[in-house]
Amino acid sequence: MSSARRAVYRHADLARLFDPRSIAIIGASPRAGSFGERTLNALAHYDGRVHLVNSRYERIGERPCYPSVAALPEVPDCAIIVVAREAVEPIVEECIAAGVGGVMIYASGYSETARPERIAQQKRLTELARTGRMPIVGPNCIGMLNFRSRAGVTFMQTPRLPEPRPHAVGLVSQSGALGFSLAQAHERGASFSHLLTTGNSCDVDVADCIAFLAEDPNCAAIACVFEGMPDPTRLLEAAELADAADKPLVLYKLGTGEQGAAAAMSHTGSLAGSMAAYGAAFERAGAILVEDFEALVETASFLAKAPRRPTARGAAVVAVSGGSAIMAADRAEVHGVPLPQPKPEVRAVLQARIPEFGSPRNPCDVTAQVANDPESLTACAEALLKDDAYGVLIYPQIYATALSAQRVAMLSELSERCGKPVCIVWTTEWLEGPGSRAAEEDPRVALFRSTDRCFAALAAWRARAERRAAGPRRLVRRSPSEAAAQAAALLDAAAPGATLTEREAKRVLAAYGVPVVPERLARSVEEAVAAAAALGYPVAMKVESPDLPHKTEAGVIRLGIKNEAELRDAYAAVMANAERVSPPPRINGVLVQPMARPGVEVMVGGRMDPQFGPLVLVGLGGILVELMRDTATALAPVTPEEAQAMLRRLKGFRALQGFRGAPAADLDRLADIVCRLSELLADQRERIAELDVNPIICAGAEAVAVDALIVRSKGE
Amino acid sequence: MSSARRAVYRHADLARLFDPRSIAIIGASPRAGSFGERTLNALAHYDGRVHLVNSRYERIGERPCYPSVAALPEVPDCAIIVVAREAVEPIVEECIAAGVGGVMIYASGYSETARPERIAQQKRLTELARTGRMPIVGPNCIGMLNFRSRAGVTFMQTPRLPEPRPHAVGLVSQSGALGFSLAQAHERGASFSHLLTTGNSCDVDVADCIAFLAEDPNCAAIACVFEGMPDPTRLLEAAELADAADKPLVLYKLGTGEQGAAAAMSHTGSLAGSMAAYGAAFERAGAILVEDFEALVETASFLAKAPRRPTARGAAVVAVSGGSAIMAADRAEVHGVPLPQPKPEVRAVLQARIPEFGSPRNPCDVTAQVANDPESLTACAEALLKDDAYGVLIYPQIYATALSAQRVAMLSELSERCGKPVCIVWTTEWLEGPGSRAAEEDPRVALFRSTDRCFAALAAWRARAERRAAGPRRLVRRSPSEAAAQAAALLDAAAPGATLTEREAKRVLAAYGVPVVPERLARSVEEAVAAAAALGYPVAMKVESPDLPHKTEAGVIRLGIKNEAELRDAYAAVMANAERVSPPPRINGVLVQPMARPGVEVMVGGRMDPQFGPLVLVGLGGILVELMRDTATALAPVTPEEAQAMLRRLKGFRALQGFRGAPAADLDRLADIVCRLSELLADQRERIAELDVNPIICAGAEAVAVDALIVRSKGE
Repeated sequence: MSSARRAVYRHADLARLFDPRSIAIIGASPRAGSFGERTLNALAHYDGRVHLVNSRYERIGERPCYPSVAALPEVPDCAIIVVAREAVEPIVEECIAAGVGGVMIYASGYSETARPERIAQQKRLTELARTGRMPIVGPNCIGMLNFRSRAGVTFMQTPRLPEPRPHAVGLVSQSGALGFSLAQAHERGASFSHLLTTGNSCDVDVADCIAFLAEDPNCAAIACVFEGMPDPTRLLEAAELADAADKPLVLYKLGTGEQGAAAAMSHTGSLAGSMAAYGAAFERAGAILVEDFEALVETASFLAKAPRRPTARGAAVVAVSGGSAIMAADRAEVHGVPLPQPKPEVRAVLQARIPEFGSPRNPCDVTAQVANDPESLTACAEALLKDDAYGVLIYPQIYATALSAQRVAMLSELSERCGKPVCIVWTTEWLEGPGSRAAEEDPRVALFRSTDRCFAALAAWRARAERRAAGPRRLVRRSPSEAAAQAAALLDAAAPGATLTEREAKRVLAAYGVPVVPERLARSVEEAVAAAAALGYPVAMKVESPDLPHKTEAGVIRLGIKNEAELRDAYAAVMANAERVSPPPRINGVLVQPMARPGVEVMVGGRMDPQFGPLVLVGLGGILVELMRDTATALAPVTPEEAQAMLRRLKGFRALQGFRGAPAADLDRLADIVCRLSELLADQRERIAELDVNPIICAGAEAVAVDALIVRSKGE
Repeated sequence: MSSARRAVYRHADLARLFDPRSIAIIGASPRAGSFGERTLNALAHYDGRVHLVNSRYERIGERPCYPSVAALPEVPDCAIIVVAREAVEPIVEECIAAGVGGVMIYASGYSETARPERIAQQKRLTELARTGRMPIVGPNCIGMLNFRSRAGVTFMQTPRLPEPRPHAVGLVSQSGALGFSLAQAHERGASFSHLLTTGNSCDVDVADCIAFLAEDPNCAAIACVFEGMPDPTRLLEAAELADAADKPLVLYKLGTGEQGAAAAMSHTGSLAGSMAAYGAAFERAGAILVEDFEALVETASFLAKAPRRPTARGAAVVAVSGGSAIMAADRAEVHGVPLPQPKPEVRAVLQARIPEFGSPRNPCDVTAQVANDPESLTACAEALLKDDAYGVLIYPQIYATALSAQRVAMLSELSERCGKPVCIVWTTEWLEGPGSRAAEEDPRVALFRSTDRCFAALAAWRARAERRAAGPRRLVRRSPSEAAAQAAALLDAAAPGATLTEREAKRVLAAYGVPVVPERLARSVEEAVAAAAALGYPVAMKVESPDLPHKTEAGVIRLGIKNEAELRDAYAAVMANAERVSPPPRINGVLVQPMARPGVEVMVGGRMDPQFGPLVLVGLGGILVELMRDTATALAPVTPEEAQAMLRRLKGFRALQGFRGAPAADLDRLADIVCRLSELLADQRERIAELDVNPIICAGAEAVAVDALIVRSKGE
């Protein structure tokens, strides 16, 4: 936990542990219901060699039992340590000495108890793994499944596992139980290569497991349940390996709420960080974050079966019922999956085949007549899937009968012929009704038990392909090269933890080439009058004080001052308000600024995330961002394209396009400012705890930062 | 479709049709795969009498076949008309003449084709139902299922149906296919009384079906798939009957998007109205609207099993894995289901039973030790469920084994003893794994295959009980009794379809006792100067014109005018802008108003919905409402409690509570204004097409309407 950051394990580091040819159970037992006995049972169908270690027995059942690891007839690839916590450490040492490929530890009672001595005990295991160069899974772990070798390396009841198919998914779960929940999908036909669970992750964590699967030939996609880890950037490192292997990675995050995070604390002692940071990080890493646990296996299985790149943006829906066609259209719209209309030739086929009370469009309703004329469905599905406007066909299966498997076969054959995937939305509530297994097992047809999840997966599929098609991320610095040094000097002048004055903050921004409103500091009303005359009316006036970060609330701002008389009144008023604040703030004077031309207000902020480093966020300015929490977050720095994508993701994006007669913002200009501020956040990650540039006023080609707040970090 | 509104059918009207003791198939056929043959097959397990009608046959299989309905040995309760469209009408007439209890028509090609002659053909069926006083289901209908009598009155393949249990759900679906999708849940253990599908609804529609089920003793809850209907207030009438019977009604709405609505148009010719109006209407009727099709059967089955009222607001979670406990806490938070901590005595029980690496809290993690000590789970579950802070217990089933059914039995027994429901969240992806059927069939334990849907259902359960506990809705008029007549006179002075000037609109508001900002109309700059002097600076100035409804965009508004000089400048500027508008607007002069004290801006609007009548909506004012679409809608008029609930539902509600140092709005005052405006909308439903009061500025106890727009309806 505390040790220096370790790069993720690679496939070769974990191959003996996760794909063992021999497994030793250390602490084997003949006692019914014991962990040792249950583990041996779970290995009943394993195609490798099983060895038992326990000095108390000479035989267990038919098998010999050895007094120690050293006494075994071979060095096992994987050792499962089944003994109680107190006895674990010497066994780990013994395994290291023997050259075991890796160990798994069931015992609980380590860091999850939050007791210092137990945290220390777990830390010793970490040290053993490092110094012994032997990977350790657990402690507090319930094991793993290897579908290729049929190894149930676990105390959970394990049936004979089906061999992985070419579309097998590799499963990773920080929560052992939820991992086994997912893996049971094999009972209904889903295909997996491994289930890897990590428990307390003293050494091997979910990032290592993802990295292993990224390079493992037995799986085509990865699904992961993730809770939190001390250094989640490891997960990004693993995600990049998956991306390098062009293997889709689907993630579900546990502990998204405050209560969930509290439960997480008491569970594995992991840190469940803020979802915005996780979302930003996963997006950067090219991982697909699903909102529902139920979407994990479905989405990963679809991505494992589908070609990596859709041949077209559009999707075609062919249904035998109007209701399911409507439901598909509803959800396509929600997820932004276009359902273009068929071209004339295709429409002609549909019209020829579909009765007048059906719908020869997209979504296409062949109607219940299909019961008498199944060929009509085949012909329409084929016509649609051959239309090059469509990259995928969706078929809602409304009723499961003995004939359903035939329909799956027809769709599979069609998919193969067209080189495009087919998704069956299993709308029937007979969840494992006839035909469902055929679809799950089919290499091309993907099964979803929710229309919504189907279209969410299709959107993610396209987004992933588009991201990869855009090529590797190219970050070209936009700020001047000398900016970092200038800003560092300005920031270092402030005390650790201090809030910079607006004027100081804007000088930092200016160093990065961010346009800021001109201003003059006036120490008296006469200086203010002179400043306003020089800058030109109308002006704004703000008390400058290191002790008044929230100027609006303190009443020390006046906007739209039109002339000298108003200026004098304003000066008196803001000074009086400032003096009312307790304890009395230090006052440097007043800032006088020309009023910015009215426009759309945008805010750009950032903070140093303890887990992911500098984050930049954008939102609409003024109070909108705080009130509506309508923001987009990314890891800093960002490219101009990423900055634009952030802006477009705002619910209130329309405001930037010229809303209600207001001028549109120049998105290129604004994106440039976001980039520069993200570079500032990245360069000064040691110095800036928080940044808040609010508002940036955008009017046509102009954009200018009117106010800025920087909080200096507390120190290294 | 076009005829005068018919009140919903009641149970007695439809009992012969939906719960028949004898069924005739008219158009019976021995031909394999024909609709007649398939319908006879679907009746294989029916416990009533089946009669066949077809003049072409004397026998079909073992059964006699009669030449006409009149020739049958008895008058059938239900007749299924299997013949082609052209032959339907005379048969319907024959059925009426014979006194048949009701008919069902499969034939398609009626109004769903959108052809005038086919619409007329369907209308003739409607007329026959009315004049003959015989209910008709269909046309374009795929039938119904009666689980009590095991009647499959359909051409869909129908196995032997299981008898309804006390917790049976009645299913209703406008889409026949999706209805049969839902009903197949009986294959996995869900219990139903009926599946009623309506097709084109020439006579019997989903509202009638709900009304029938509301009064039917065989179901404990109702689940309905709804697409749209010409007069959806019929659905509200039916929902009220369900509510009067204290029978929960769960709805899923098809056609929620624009594409979906377009697909709906071409499907049954129904109107898929705006979701805001539907949501408002369903809420008023006490129905539960679910977002996912998958939630229908689960939610209705839970409500059918659970006591109508939870004994406490809190929920307890007992898990055997930390991950599933965290997932539960995440979703409880999302849906606002409190998970309070156990009281000390209960905590003591948990601590005694749970190992140190578990969690003796709520959510409670008994850990995987339960495999060796199943009693620990029982003891913890019991201690939690007996704590009077909890009204329900949630148990995530992470892994399905041969023992899972025993756990269901344990939880069921516990539920019975405590009089509180238990929800099993089936997190394992072995969807119909062992134990799942036991849970589905259990009268007390409810099964959810999604943590999210479980907590959504719990929230709906509590909200329903709270609504009913609050007693019947009491609407006490708040506006003056003479308001309606005064406003009518003002509105009648405007031309149909015209937009009232701001001044006219505010007079309407004032008649209803809504505070409006004082103002004077000035026809010259000198009059404006005099008006401002009388009202007191600062003032606002707006050009008054019936042709300039969007004053901000036209640049004919000036705010914050501080003195006479500014006023003169402003007058010149707004007049110049007004004159630039083409075609030249009629200008009555300028309105001069004192500036309202700054405060939170709220908007209250309304419109006449063609389906649901007058709707009132609230949102935050200024551009926020348009930009963020953060509004709450209700049927007008509303009670003060409903008005407050609408305000609280806004995402930006915090703005009303005194945000960033601004004064809080007086919610009672604001709710009173919403009530009065809702009364205006309801009273003047014939006259007002649209109302937009934006902004209402709220500052402490003051709230004043600063601008208002009323569009007169086009009709009489």
